[in-house]
Amino acid sequence: MEPGRMDVGILAMDVYFPPTCVQQEALEDYDGASKGKYTIGLGQDCMAFCTELEDVISMSLTVVLSLLEKYQIDPRQIGRLEVGSETVIDKSKSIKTWLMQIFEEYDNTDVEGVDSTNACYGGTAALFNCVNWVESSSWDGRYGLVVCTDSAVYAEGPARPTGGAAAIAMLIGPNAPISFESKFRGTHMAHVYDFYKPNLASEYPVVDGKLSQTCYLMALDSCYKRFCGKFEKIEGKQFSISDANYFVFHSPYNKLVQKSFARLVFNDFLHCPSNLQKEERENLEPFSNMTGEESYESRELEKASQQVAKPFYNVKVQPSTLLPKQIGNMYTASLYAALASVVYNKHSTLMGQRIVMFSYGSGLTSTMFSFKLHDGQHPFCLSNIASILNLSEKLKSRHVFSPEKFAKTLKLMEHRYGAKDFETSNDTSLLSPGTFYLTKVDSMYRRCYAKKGSEDAPGSKMFGFSSMSVANGY
Amino acid sequence: MEPGRMDVGILAMDVYFPPTCVQQEALEDYDGASKGKYTIGLGQDCMAFCTELEDVISMSLTVVLSLLEKYQIDPRQIGRLEVGSETVIDKSKSIKTWLMQIFEEYDNTDVEGVDSTNACYGGTAALFNCVNWVESSSWDGRYGLVVCTDSAVYAEGPARPTGGAAAIAMLIGPNAPISFESKFRGTHMAHVYDFYKPNLASEYPVVDGKLSQTCYLMALDSCYKRFCGKFEKIEGKQFSISDANYFVFHSPYNKLVQKSFARLVFNDFLHCPSNLQKEERENLEPFSNMTGEESYESRELEKASQQVAKPFYNVKVQPSTLLPKQIGNMYTASLYAALASVVYNKHSTLMGQRIVMFSYGSGLTSTMFSFKLHDGQHPFCLSNIASILNLSEKLKSRHVFSPEKFAKTLKLMEHRYGAKDFETSNDTSLLSPGTFYLTKVDSMYRRCYAKKGSEDAPGSKMFGFSSMSVANGY
Repeated sequence: MEPGRMDVGILAMDVYFPPTCVQQEALEDYDGASKGKYTIGLGQDCMAFCTELEDVISMSLTVVLSLLEKYQIDPRQIGRLEVGSETVIDKSKSIKTWLMQIFEEYDNTDVEGVDSTNACYGGTAALFNCVNWVESSSWDGRYGLVVCTDSAVYAEGPARPTGGAAAIAMLIGPNAPISFESKFRGTHMAHVYDFYKPNLASEYPVVDGKLSQTCYLMALDSCYKRFCGKFEKIEGKQFSISDANYFVFHSPYNKLVQKSFARLVFNDFLHCPSNLQKEERENLEPFSNMTGEESYESRELEKASQQVAKPFYNVKVQPSTLLPKQIGNMYTASLYAALASVVYNKHSTLMGQRIVMFSYGSGLTSTMFSFKLHDGQHPFCLSNIASILNLSEKLKSRHVFSPEKFAKTLKLMEHRYGAKDFETSNDTSLLSPGTFYLTKVDSMYRRCYAKKGSEDAPGSKMFGFSSMSVANGY
Repeated sequence: MEPGRMDVGILAMDVYFPPTCVQQEALEDYDGASKGKYTIGLGQDCMAFCTELEDVISMSLTVVLSLLEKYQIDPRQIGRLEVGSETVIDKSKSIKTWLMQIFEEYDNTDVEGVDSTNACYGGTAALFNCVNWVESSSWDGRYGLVVCTDSAVYAEGPARPTGGAAAIAMLIGPNAPISFESKFRGTHMAHVYDFYKPNLASEYPVVDGKLSQTCYLMALDSCYKRFCGKFEKIEGKQFSISDANYFVFHSPYNKLVQKSFARLVFNDFLHCPSNLQKEERENLEPFSNMTGEESYESRELEKASQQVAKPFYNVKVQPSTLLPKQIGNMYTASLYAALASVVYNKHSTLMGQRIVMFSYGSGLTSTMFSFKLHDGQHPFCLSNIASILNLSEKLKSRHVFSPEKFAKTLKLMEHRYGAKDFETSNDTSLLSPGTFYLTKVDSMYRRCYAKKGSEDAPGSKMFGFSSMSVANGY
């Protein structure tokens, strides 16, 4: 490998989430759920959602332009752009093609890549594809750009509080501060109906919550086993949680992240009990002869392993939970919002450290992989990424909706999903300058977006849409 | 690059198309269209379609198992599997996960890759991704497998005769007989509404036929310009059609392929008139000062350039048109069915030759790229691929339906699309042994498939489904 092409990975990140959210505590009350069911039971604080003005296309336009502007990347320097999403607005036209508007403005239409799809795993697939492109013989020396964008909404009922919405953009290239350890990778894929979207006219999925959780934990076990196997083969020593500084999980809700990390601790115990202290071992020994299936069902094991894992969780997992707890499930963006949380919270101490990632998409597809963290060079350094992410500020400036207003919004969106011939309210008062929003869907289902003006350039701006009207003019 | 990793490309191919088809001539008559409208106007002979027994999932199961069996590939040797499709049966669960059933049977769940989506371009995206994986640092030495599967159906009206259905499987690895010239690549992507599927409850697309054709030709021009530019930069000489032995196009209908090739000839003329004979030049000179837009509209230019291109077309394009003319538009599989046609028709003379490919997906995404053909080693050699493809035999054994029966089938499928809780007829008399077919969709939208038994093992066989029932048993 040429020296210039080493350490391929994430050079820069930006995240966007809607300014509108609902408190999980208020939602418990509104739903008549028992106190703590969502906040402690699910482990969630708050949930973001799109109003009629935003969708996965507008959020991805917003975050891509924001990343390019904040890191001062010329759009002509992008040679590949891939999108991961499971929120289908069109069954044929990729979200990537809407994003091309930004690049057409700069006469750059030479941009490879389309959309990758399998539930929450699409972003990871897009990321792997982009990294492989940089390492391939067809790489042309330009940057890759990966976008994860999703809006997670559920029908009224027990799954509704597990929604969320966000878009993440990641710039890919060599000499990255967040670089792949490409040889440590454990994948597990299988055919299961744990969560799927066969009802094409509805935005809501069909979910078997219990099956999905079991599948997630089974996939985690399988990926961890393979990841450890590859690590041992290459490094010549056993892998345990002490070999990584952070563990970042796909986060549909925080409670599952707690269970997942505890499951890794239990795996370490089964693999090599001597890794644990005497007292910890004693807590887990009663479960050492359980079959796999029993172990997924056992509440006692769950409790015991979480107790053993707790002090490690606080150090190795907690820093990744900021955005997932505040925003909710972001589907493809969830894992990378958790990674962004670690970078934001810990950027000054990450150099030389290892972060292990677990990506899961129902259906099912899953991979465990790892990053090595480097200093990087401005603007592609951890401190600059953290400062551009600016998460606390972004979270603080959100607008909290009442559960009534939230339910009303979702009701309106049910009618809007797949609909044509309507205009949105165009009331952009809650949006920050620079945010793209949907203005209308015409009688041919064509979607029009505008960009909210900045204070310097007030008023809406139809950014990047000239080429569209030319093309449609034929 | 290590010597063992050179010449990455297509090692093996197999194609599957439904045994049911309708003659375009009979369809003209049935539709009350003028004689020759579909056969000469569109340039199509016949159109394949799925009955209620088949869909994109069953076709992809059939073709993947067929490829593995015919080339004697152990399913454990597959390390990556990617699907390109624009026929959405589930908006979240990838077609790839259904295919995992074949590999779970062999305890191989360590298979990367998901589905790639953008109209007819998804197969090319999947192919590029698989090739890049083999060239990347995360490659684990196993084969990649790319599947393109689509069913193209249109509402009653002028677009209906441009349907089709097929699935293609391609094995990817180093030392391939059909290897990528990865540095010659011209991509053009933009945001257009030429063909899209925003009506989520319907299988039918929204199509602007005229716009789509213009977009296709504009994209072709742009890709060809970039492809030639890269060729000239690396090879130090101008590229013209004489530098490739075959040109293979995405083929929604044959007439567009004729127009496309003529367009390349016109591009060559504009770029370097001296490439053409005096008489040919004189035919095209009246159009040399047209604006781009005028040139897409001009019937006279179309006629003149097709006339000049005709002798070259017969040699360089005609051999690729076998399957597309007989099956119709196969969306993602279309370009690779055309490639398979060249390999089938010309395998003994391809060594050392160059094939230029043009992939187009509405919305829009497009790339021109090229293959270099090599001898290969059995079973991965051109003659074996041709013999396994066995196209004439496969085409001959089809069953021709009347237009009435075809229309009735499509009417039934309109009700079946996105539906639940039904059983199919299970009348597999028209299917060949080894073909997968849909048996039912249950009340939770879960789809059950079976495999038609061979003569050695008569009766239907629920191949590879044990793992599914285990997983669903939780």
